[in-house]
Amino acid sequence: GHTIDLGGIFPPLTTPFSPTQEVDYTQLEGNLCRYASIPFRGLVVLGSNGEYPYLAPQERLEVVSCVRRALPRDRLLLAGSGCESTQATIKMTVSMAEAGADVALVVTPCYYRGAMTSAALVQHYTEVADASPIPVVLYSVPANTSLDLPLEAVLTLAQHPNILGIKDSGGDITRIGLMVHKTRKEDFQVLAGSASFLLASYALGASGGVCALANVLGGPLCQLDRLCREGGWQEARDLQHRLIEPNVSVTRRFGIPGLKKAMEWFGYYGGPCRAPLTPLSPSQVEELRSTFSANGWL
Amino acid sequence: GHTIDLGGIFPPLTTPFSPTQEVDYTQLEGNLCRYASIPFRGLVVLGSNGEYPYLAPQERLEVVSCVRRALPRDRLLLAGSGCESTQATIKMTVSMAEAGADVALVVTPCYYRGAMTSAALVQHYTEVADASPIPVVLYSVPANTSLDLPLEAVLTLAQHPNILGIKDSGGDITRIGLMVHKTRKEDFQVLAGSASFLLASYALGASGGVCALANVLGGPLCQLDRLCREGGWQEARDLQHRLIEPNVSVTRRFGIPGLKKAMEWFGYYGGPCRAPLTPLSPSQVEELRSTFSANGWL
Amino acid sequence: GHTIDLGGIFPPLTTPFSPTQEVDYTQLEGNLCRYASIPFRGLVVLGSNGEYPYLAPQERLEVVSCVRRALPRDRLLLAGSGCESTQATIKMTVSMAEAGADVALVVTPCYYRGAMTSAALVQHYTEVADASPIPVVLYSVPANTSLDLPLEAVLTLAQHPNILGIKDSGGDITRIGLMVHKTRKEDFQVLAGSASFLLASYALGASGGVCALANVLGGPLCQLDRLCREGGWQEARDLQHRLIEPNVSVTRRFGIPGLKKAMEWFGYYGGPCRAPLTPLSPSQVEELRSTFSANGWL
Amino acid sequence: GHTIDLGGIFPPLTTPFSPTQEVDYTQLEGNLCRYASIPFRGLVVLGSNGEYPYLAPQERLEVVSCVRRALPRDRLLLAGSGCESTQATIKMTVSMAEAGADVALVVTPCYYRGAMTSAALVQHYTEVADASPIPVVLYSVPANTSLDLPLEAVLTLAQHPNILGIKDSGGDITRIGLMVHKTRKEDFQVLAGSASFLLASYALGASGGVCALANVLGGPLCQLDRLCREGGWQEARDLQHRLIEPNVSVTRRFGIPGLKKAMEWFGYYGGPCRAPLTPLSPSQVEELRSTFSANGWL
Repeated sequence: GHTIDLGGIFPPLTTPFSPTQEVDYTQLEGNLCRYASIPFRGLVVLGSNGEYPYLAPQERLEVVSCVRRALPRDRLLLAGSGCESTQATIKMTVSMAEAGADVALVVTPCYYRGAMTSAALVQHYTEVADASPIPVVLYSVPANTSLDLPLEAVLTLAQHPNILGIKDSGGDITRIGLMVHKTRKEDFQVLAGSASFLLASYALGASGGVCALANVLGGPLCQLDRLCREGGWQEARDLQHRLIEPNVSVTRRFGIPGLKKAMEWFGYYGGPCRAPLTPLSPSQVEELRSTFSANGWL
Repeated sequence: GHTIDLGGIFPPLTTPFSPTQEVDYTQLEGNLCRYASIPFRGLVVLGSNGEYPYLAPQERLEVVSCVRRALPRDRLLLAGSGCESTQATIKMTVSMAEAGADVALVVTPCYYRGAMTSAALVQHYTEVADASPIPVVLYSVPANTSLDLPLEAVLTLAQHPNILGIKDSGGDITRIGLMVHKTRKEDFQVLAGSASFLLASYALGASGGVCALANVLGGPLCQLDRLCREGGWQEARDLQHRLIEPNVSVTRRFGIPGLKKAMEWFGYYGGPCRAPLTPLSPSQVEELRSTFSANGWL
Repeated sequence: GHTIDLGGIFPPLTTPFSPTQEVDYTQLEGNLCRYASIPFRGLVVLGSNGEYPYLAPQERLEVVSCVRRALPRDRLLLAGSGCESTQATIKMTVSMAEAGADVALVVTPCYYRGAMTSAALVQHYTEVADASPIPVVLYSVPANTSLDLPLEAVLTLAQHPNILGIKDSGGDITRIGLMVHKTRKEDFQVLAGSASFLLASYALGASGGVCALANVLGGPLCQLDRLCREGGWQEARDLQHRLIEPNVSVTRRFGIPGLKKAMEWFGYYGGPCRAPLTPLSPSQVEELRSTFSANGWL
Repeated sequence: GHTIDLGGIFPPLTTPFSPTQEVDYTQLEGNLCRYASIPFRGLVVLGSNGEYPYLAPQERLEVVSCVRRALPRDRLLLAGSGCESTQATIKMTVSMAEAGADVALVVTPCYYRGAMTSAALVQHYTEVADASPIPVVLYSVPANTSLDLPLEAVLTLAQHPNILGIKDSGGDITRIGLMVHKTRKEDFQVLAGSASFLLASYALGASGGVCALANVLGGPLCQLDRLCREGGWQEARDLQHRLIEPNVSVTRRFGIPGLKKAMEWFGYYGGPCRAPLTPLSPSQVEELRSTFSANGWL
């Protein structure tokens, strides 16, 4: 069979909620409609920005189904299927495949991080990849999990025929370069997990990016992707520079509440987060907005 | 109404699994039967040592029901009801109360730790405590959550009439002393979250302890509790000293797989953990065993 | 020969500076005069609170000489002689012994912390202790060095005939208990490195304390020492409780500038710190003062 | 006056020691002689790789004088002049300027890291830059100092006429991009502090690199510099990939003892480090060597 090509930009969709914090599928479809004209390679649902830990298993599956129905077949659908236990992750992965996901994005289990040795994580991912009807992408996001999927585990797992690549949100460009270099003989694709280090990741050989900021500035991120592919590095640099501050503000600084707020300024539905995530204060909104306006986006 | 007195020792029960990693209720009842003769103040189910993140919601409720049926009414049943979202935590807390829990033990949500400000956590716990039919105990366990419930949040929450106290597993004795001192005018009880600093916590004014090691050495821990209450500090010190190494080995060093293995040496059912937690290697078992034998317990 | 008994309280003296940031030996003697009536076991000079990294080698020696001249012979003089290299530490230790120090307090070298393995540190301290004409006390202060002297290194070094004990400022009471327990067959004395966990350390078997707060509240700390030795644990607890907040404010919260400011309220010379340490703002002074007044010390 | 152009590669020289750990100036000159044919922009002496914390003040000055005498005038000499106190740093900076340094490289003071606020560091660097007869380069190396010079401090200091740029060894490419972007209206130059992220830093707009690995593989690093300047990004990527593992092994993994050992394989004098830095074990030497041979350098 063919390997799925992950080259390009994927927005990790936020999950729209109604004022009472119920999943709002209509708004989700509305956003998808607006994203249709942007040349994304595909979409991620239920990544960290999708508030997946706040959704019940049944809700997670319904989100996948909803997005699959609305998404053209040539757009890839990556679905976050990670759970804490191996058995729950397998069950969720199989169900998401049935619901129409093309690829399973599997976050590192982390609650017992002291016990999540390289060996334990290799076994976890191997069992999941063995059982999954769709290809698996590893997902390391230490800002949330306080755990970096060890490089040696990545290199071992890269050899698994059903493991396609990794989304790395840690931002350690040395590690990203090393992953690309050490897996150069495998079909293994590295996705930058944030717009802040997208250009640098491409310069080191990454295939694409899963970028929260693509929920807001999808067009410019696809343009940055294109410039890097075509070798327009000088123009790419200027664009990258203007994206860092907005990106930091919708990730590290203000998180998902900031991301959803910024979406509203660009014509998307943002809406509330589920508690305990709290809305921004007026002064925080002001600070958020200034990172977009100071860089020429508003 | 009366405040529930949390003074004494609580083992945070491990959850027995069969060889196929299904919850084994028969073995759970067997362990409860063996614990019946130890003067525990009560039991905790579905704390971190209960592998709660690996249980489905329905399984969590069944464990509470099973333990409630087997437990004499004069033993307190604390049940871990924390989930990532506020709404899921409320729902789980209400259901566990219906299943017979006396007290809800609510761990800090942590996946979006960057957004878990003191204000966000105060709001989360306040909503849970408002909605809960049973008293709430806060639960801070930074080794798992990478998040310390901020002291200022604890002091605010201590004033809530339905918040009874805190289980603090961080081991910062300065903080424990400060919590006791600053809440001296409230009915707020501090529980040491580990046997390693139990004596020190009592010396600073803690009410009791929730100690993984009580699954294994419940008798000696109740004796330590008694010595501290009666002022036998010199004897208490000698006993505490002999408990640190075994405790470190069943918590930080080898985690739940180590705890379950040690339980078997003392007549309890340990059994496997759910994956991705992995069993100890033979040399790890040897090292674990030596921490018990070198201190005179085996 | 006899082992030096470290039982009791030691203030780690601040180093007085003139308005132009020169060492002010007259003010140093003035403070010593005021401390003479407090039943300290001895004094520490040039610990972290003495701003030792800001003093030239010659200044460090002059401070030792000055204090030795002013100090009655029955008071122990511990002098911080640690440098980054082994050879500089040996040279400084020998010179401080000649200048009248009774004991050398040797902080862990830390700049190359990634290379400071247990083996490297054991070798460092062994060479220093071999060469030193006076006994050595190990000094672990991770808040400054980002390095914890590993427990296994402590246990190995405890067997050295010229290593007397450790000043541990990390505040991990589990570790303190373990050090006391595992060295019970050696003549090895553990000193609590902070007033915040002094009672807890005594309860676990520590010999004494080196407490920044003793520069300010030396009398109450000696009283706490006495209560713990005599078994007055309930009274000790109440006293300990009232000391935590002031102590946190002159250590973690406001550091040496806070400590020096508080000294002035109690009749000692505080004065400025050397830059880049900066004086407190008026609102910080207010906050500092409230931690003393709220606990009945002002 | 003209601004000094820092564009290019600078090896941060190791300091050669004799078998008795005395500075070996003859070997230092020998290495300089070997480096003369490599198109470095200049040299750094007494950076972290120069073991500066292990040298007495007088030794630091002699190293600067020795290198200045041996170095052609068209090669820049950057000298590490940072000390813990502001006054000692100023004195050392002035002396190093007199000894022939072109630029002072000033590491963040770090022992009292809790007190090293952005304001304190701005004041420290401002006083040093005001007093220095030569331009100052900021130096942030969190692996050693556990302190990141805050971005806001960098942006403020970038406006100082005598502050030329920053050597940033933290490896956070987002931060490097942001520094370049936010100082684009100043004459402020960013130097990558490690070969591991050199290409990525250039892609984001850095001016040059101070790379430990340049002590060993100076030619290839200058070639990488040239490729990046000329836009040969594909060839640059392949070269960068082959440099990461050797670089990690002479920095994070094995530190200065590893760096000095590797230097010997390429015709330079390495020699011992000062204690407590310890030589590699035979198996570590083997592992180190394999990172060079596996990437085609040996």
